[in-house]
Amino acid sequence: MVKAAIVGATGIVGQQFLVALKGHPWIQIAALAASERSAGRSYKEAITDAQSGALRWFCQEPPVEEVMTMPVQNAAEMDASALDIVFSAIESDQAKILEPKFARDKAVISTASAFRYDEDVPILIPGINSEHAKLIDVQRKARGWKGFITPIPNCTTTGLAIALKPICESFGVNAVIMTSMQALSGAGRSPGVIGLDILDNVIPFIAGEEEKVQRETQKILGRFAGNSISSAKFNVSCTCTRVNVREGHTESVFVSTQKACEADEVARAMREYVGSPGDTDLPSAPRHMIIVHEDPFRPQPRLDRDAEDGMATVVGRIRKDNVLKNGIKYLLVSHNTKMGAAKGAVLVAELLIREGYISS
Amino acid sequence: MVKAAIVGATGIVGQQFLVALKGHPWIQIAALAASERSAGRSYKEAITDAQSGALRWFCQEPPVEEVMTMPVQNAAEMDASALDIVFSAIESDQAKILEPKFARDKAVISTASAFRYDEDVPILIPGINSEHAKLIDVQRKARGWKGFITPIPNCTTTGLAIALKPICESFGVNAVIMTSMQALSGAGRSPGVIGLDILDNVIPFIAGEEEKVQRETQKILGRFAGNSISSAKFNVSCTCTRVNVREGHTESVFVSTQKACEADEVARAMREYVGSPGDTDLPSAPRHMIIVHEDPFRPQPRLDRDAEDGMATVVGRIRKDNVLKNGIKYLLVSHNTKMGAAKGAVLVAELLIREGYISS
Amino acid sequence: MVKAAIVGATGIVGQQFLVALKGHPWIQIAALAASERSAGRSYKEAITDAQSGALRWFCQEPPVEEVMTMPVQNAAEMDASALDIVFSAIESDQAKILEPKFARDKAVISTASAFRYDEDVPILIPGINSEHAKLIDVQRKARGWKGFITPIPNCTTTGLAIALKPICESFGVNAVIMTSMQALSGAGRSPGVIGLDILDNVIPFIAGEEEKVQRETQKILGRFAGNSISSAKFNVSCTCTRVNVREGHTESVFVSTQKACEADEVARAMREYVGSPGDTDLPSAPRHMIIVHEDPFRPQPRLDRDAEDGMATVVGRIRKDNVLKNGIKYLLVSHNTKMGAAKGAVLVAELLIREGYISS
Amino acid sequence: MVKAAIVGATGIVGQQFLVALKGHPWIQIAALAASERSAGRSYKEAITDAQSGALRWFCQEPPVEEVMTMPVQNAAEMDASALDIVFSAIESDQAKILEPKFARDKAVISTASAFRYDEDVPILIPGINSEHAKLIDVQRKARGWKGFITPIPNCTTTGLAIALKPICESFGVNAVIMTSMQALSGAGRSPGVIGLDILDNVIPFIAGEEEKVQRETQKILGRFAGNSISSAKFNVSCTCTRVNVREGHTESVFVSTQKACEADEVARAMREYVGSPGDTDLPSAPRHMIIVHEDPFRPQPRLDRDAEDGMATVVGRIRKDNVLKNGIKYLLVSHNTKMGAAKGAVLVAELLIREGYISS
Repeated sequence: MVKAAIVGATGIVGQQFLVALKGHPWIQIAALAASERSAGRSYKEAITDAQSGALRWFCQEPPVEEVMTMPVQNAAEMDASALDIVFSAIESDQAKILEPKFARDKAVISTASAFRYDEDVPILIPGINSEHAKLIDVQRKARGWKGFITPIPNCTTTGLAIALKPICESFGVNAVIMTSMQALSGAGRSPGVIGLDILDNVIPFIAGEEEKVQRETQKILGRFAGNSISSAKFNVSCTCTRVNVREGHTESVFVSTQKACEADEVARAMREYVGSPGDTDLPSAPRHMIIVHEDPFRPQPRLDRDAEDGMATVVGRIRKDNVLKNGIKYLLVSHNTKMGAAKGAVLVAELLIREGYISS
Repeated sequence: MVKAAIVGATGIVGQQFLVALKGHPWIQIAALAASERSAGRSYKEAITDAQSGALRWFCQEPPVEEVMTMPVQNAAEMDASALDIVFSAIESDQAKILEPKFARDKAVISTASAFRYDEDVPILIPGINSEHAKLIDVQRKARGWKGFITPIPNCTTTGLAIALKPICESFGVNAVIMTSMQALSGAGRSPGVIGLDILDNVIPFIAGEEEKVQRETQKILGRFAGNSISSAKFNVSCTCTRVNVREGHTESVFVSTQKACEADEVARAMREYVGSPGDTDLPSAPRHMIIVHEDPFRPQPRLDRDAEDGMATVVGRIRKDNVLKNGIKYLLVSHNTKMGAAKGAVLVAELLIREGYISS
Repeated sequence: MVKAAIVGATGIVGQQFLVALKGHPWIQIAALAASERSAGRSYKEAITDAQSGALRWFCQEPPVEEVMTMPVQNAAEMDASALDIVFSAIESDQAKILEPKFARDKAVISTASAFRYDEDVPILIPGINSEHAKLIDVQRKARGWKGFITPIPNCTTTGLAIALKPICESFGVNAVIMTSMQALSGAGRSPGVIGLDILDNVIPFIAGEEEKVQRETQKILGRFAGNSISSAKFNVSCTCTRVNVREGHTESVFVSTQKACEADEVARAMREYVGSPGDTDLPSAPRHMIIVHEDPFRPQPRLDRDAEDGMATVVGRIRKDNVLKNGIKYLLVSHNTKMGAAKGAVLVAELLIREGYISS
Repeated sequence: MVKAAIVGATGIVGQQFLVALKGHPWIQIAALAASERSAGRSYKEAITDAQSGALRWFCQEPPVEEVMTMPVQNAAEMDASALDIVFSAIESDQAKILEPKFARDKAVISTASAFRYDEDVPILIPGINSEHAKLIDVQRKARGWKGFITPIPNCTTTGLAIALKPICESFGVNAVIMTSMQALSGAGRSPGVIGLDILDNVIPFIAGEEEKVQRETQKILGRFAGNSISSAKFNVSCTCTRVNVREGHTESVFVSTQKACEADEVARAMREYVGSPGDTDLPSAPRHMIIVHEDPFRPQPRLDRDAEDGMATVVGRIRKDNVLKNGIKYLLVSHNTKMGAAKGAVLVAELLIREGYISS
């Protein structure tokens, strides 16, 4: 078994890591770390509200009993020597400081954006750009690290990049226009989106989100060329909004393809897409990366976000667009806190174990 | 005073007409009509639930006391001889039968789509295409009617067309891509959208909506050329969705302009847009047709739908798009049951009174 | 295996029966029936929307593939001769006509209220009043039937009666005051609660609900005395409201007990409550009939409705009330469409199979 | 004109004071104060988000332009010498320190709970217990102040006490049981209720709320006896919950009266209730303190919260209860941030101006 720490274990993303790793066949939770305030307490104590006695457990799934008695370490001083992976579930400003420290010796898989745009850092989605893992060798060499940092994408990028991949392969992509209707869980809880602000409402702006999605999509769908990634050449233009949905980002996508194609050809390309050999056999991988509906009332976030335990991207309403050159339009739903967060990061760990970048 | 009937007076759109006409300076409600079932009863009886005694009044505004004792006529047999305008708030299949009957002698202003796409029928938005009113002369002649039919647009078209108009005038429009996040009220109440279906959800399809918006936008922004309207040449491509918002459609718009322009130039063109002379002086007209926000968190449907009593189109986040040629993107909020329905139809009546097409 | 029909199979409750019986160890689905309109079609055809091709499947769980090719019969003419149970998921007015027809020879387990208040008809909650099953013998004799009718309670009664049972047993109950905050799913879909009406709102009235809850609770917690049920003597007073929650009824309960008791004694009585021997071993039974939380922020419908697959009643905030004599107050959450509907009815079937009232 | 300061002017309650005082005939805003961080800036600067430029204005009503250029003072050092009233919209812990400072010389009207339970401090609702204002004389004497402190009740107490008052007067009250379904706005914004937590949910606990409501209701409905208030003798037992409603608390009330009464007698007593002479003539007073509906589907928070600009208490479903002695039950809706907060405090100021406790 590979030994993993979760840094930021008391927050909502940290808790999602606990759920994603419960009963994992290859990886065991060997350490938990959080801020100094939690250090020295058991995990249960650390997430118990002192005043009301309530457990601050934020996942829909029940609390993971196995870790309740584990001690929580101070992330800034965590001893990683006995570990193989550090899953990082901390904010970007902290990630900037802590992740390189751990990466000197260990594999760091991060949900933070701190290093996503560095040239020698891959943004991995197993099945979509598994070959970008090779950039880790470049990174190690450049930085003189035995370990490495591999962030996952922003949760809004994930579904967009996945559904675009078979279009890229089969027809080529010229340009992408996307409007997202994002779930509340993407904003976290500190303080996240206030109920008063989102009830009977749409919030038309998510700071920094559009730039991330545009840049990450190009990088993920770029080509690994020996020792660097050459970003995809097509432009991506987004408008990102927040709607009153708990989980599951919905995206309205318009694509211009290089080669003309019919809607049913796009549907077939998506349905048949399987990624690199073995990718869908990883323990957390969905059996179908993309599920395509014919029913025009799908995908809906509430009905489709949990497809394949939140690891599939669900697409519907594929049809021609008459504005873009060879235009195709569709909607997708992607689970922002499963494939788009902790469980997606665990899937990256599985890929890197299989590829030999991580071992016990 | 011009005398008006409301046909379909017991439904939600009919009730919105009652609210929009309450205390109107030029128009008085002279007759109410609905289905045979309501005929012969007072308005109050007609909207009272027999079993519970509850009033089936659906507007946020209080019931209009002035009409409670008015008799409701059978729409199919309504005597329109003493009337000047028939406001039609009925479904399209009924509209197809009843509206031409009334139009032989009277002005019919309709929220139904039945005649929107006929060549000799204008779709009017005062201030945007007031000059299309002249098509009424063509219609009268072609159909041998003393009256006429003028439908208002689909409620999703309204805001899109309004915000595009100053762009058309100042920079020219090549193409439009739009994703809507539409309010529940747009679906009406028979049965409308079920709470179970929209809670914690987005519904990605509204039957027929996208085609309507695409076609109507081209017609409204087309040029009146002597005896017909030549539709605007640019393509419009939409994806229309439903979100858990009570009133106010939000639209994410991407526009390719003919002439390159900066975001602030677009903002200025929108802010300064006033329509034809006198249009903003009509009793129901907004003082500002378009309100533009700098705050990136605006427009929001809950905060902005009621601007200028629901008659203004509120725009925000105007910025460059890097996919379309001379691309500009923005969001807008438009009140779908005020400017987009009954009160918008009353505004059309006002325009046609001013232009002499309707008189007492 | 016991052979069951589902009458009303195309509606939402019928679909919940399909889900509740999927892979059932004792019961197999042998027939499906619905209105004449569906008769003669496969189940899949019967629930497919002709116009859009969309599947009218209303459960959160995926459609039950096993029944998709089964033919749907006309409920009014269904041949029940080869069946052992008829699960009735139809409206009360139809139930009044159809259920007695089937009950002449077969066991009818119904979610309708049509026969709940008949003297010789038990309202069963296995584990709470399993001994009331003996009233079936009285019913058969009185009506000359080989079969029988056993309705389950109204979904709002279920949780109330369950949590009251251990209080009755341990301390005696004098009186009950309850305010419910009920989920949308309790109203069904025809048309159910319109999104427009419940968004940002509470609806303070559910026709007929309060009377049902008051009467059924007394009957369920009454004593079976040889050949009739003597209703519990305490009064129940309710106010039933609807809130914007998808599933899971929340109830705020105030109880006057006969014997003074502390909150922790009530908690213990609830936690230790196991019903009659064997009741919790039935295939669909929850392992714990009642789950009691110490965390004052529980129960919450979204977090607790699915406890024990929606079959447990979840209680919290047990504390003293200073108004009622020996007053105790608490909140509970009960899954209205699992324990409170189809799966609760399947649990009744299991009890009656065990007790020999149903056999293959 | 009476000169008023608003302390805590940048928060949501402070902003509601600005709205409540806009164009007030007797009171003008003469000073604004907030935390040290805002001090020295204009009000507009103080509520503008530095990063995004967005205005942090939280009311549904548009920002009050008149105060945008007013300077914001540091509350801890505010010079009150030129003022007549200090409206305090700060948290209780700060109120404990600052309010007595101002009260030495000035009238302090507070939304905080800090002094509500002090023996010499009245909790005023004009029209309900206007005569309690006389306790101010006692307070001044006891504390040696020229000014005084008068807090308004908790927003959940307000509607409960108002609707109970005519029952007290006409029939006497023995006991009250109440379950509330409270709006999100009652929790404020720091951080208030997170959207993730309330979507598709009910939260069954609001810390400290039930104790406040129980105690305050007894005090408000108590009798002023020369130099102290003798609290009402009846017990009040509450369960307070939070539902997904923006504004307007809904309360399900069960009352035991001393004298038997019919539902229609209670309705009449409520409808005819007018308070002390002149109370309903105060500028912010509702014309009807209590509005009673016959329609069983009322009151609903979304439809009824704004009755009389949020100053009326709206009651419905008055009917007999069969559990309590002379039991009556009903539901009410009360606007928690109008009558229940700033505008209710302005109404108190108006009463105290009329009674001569405040003057310019």
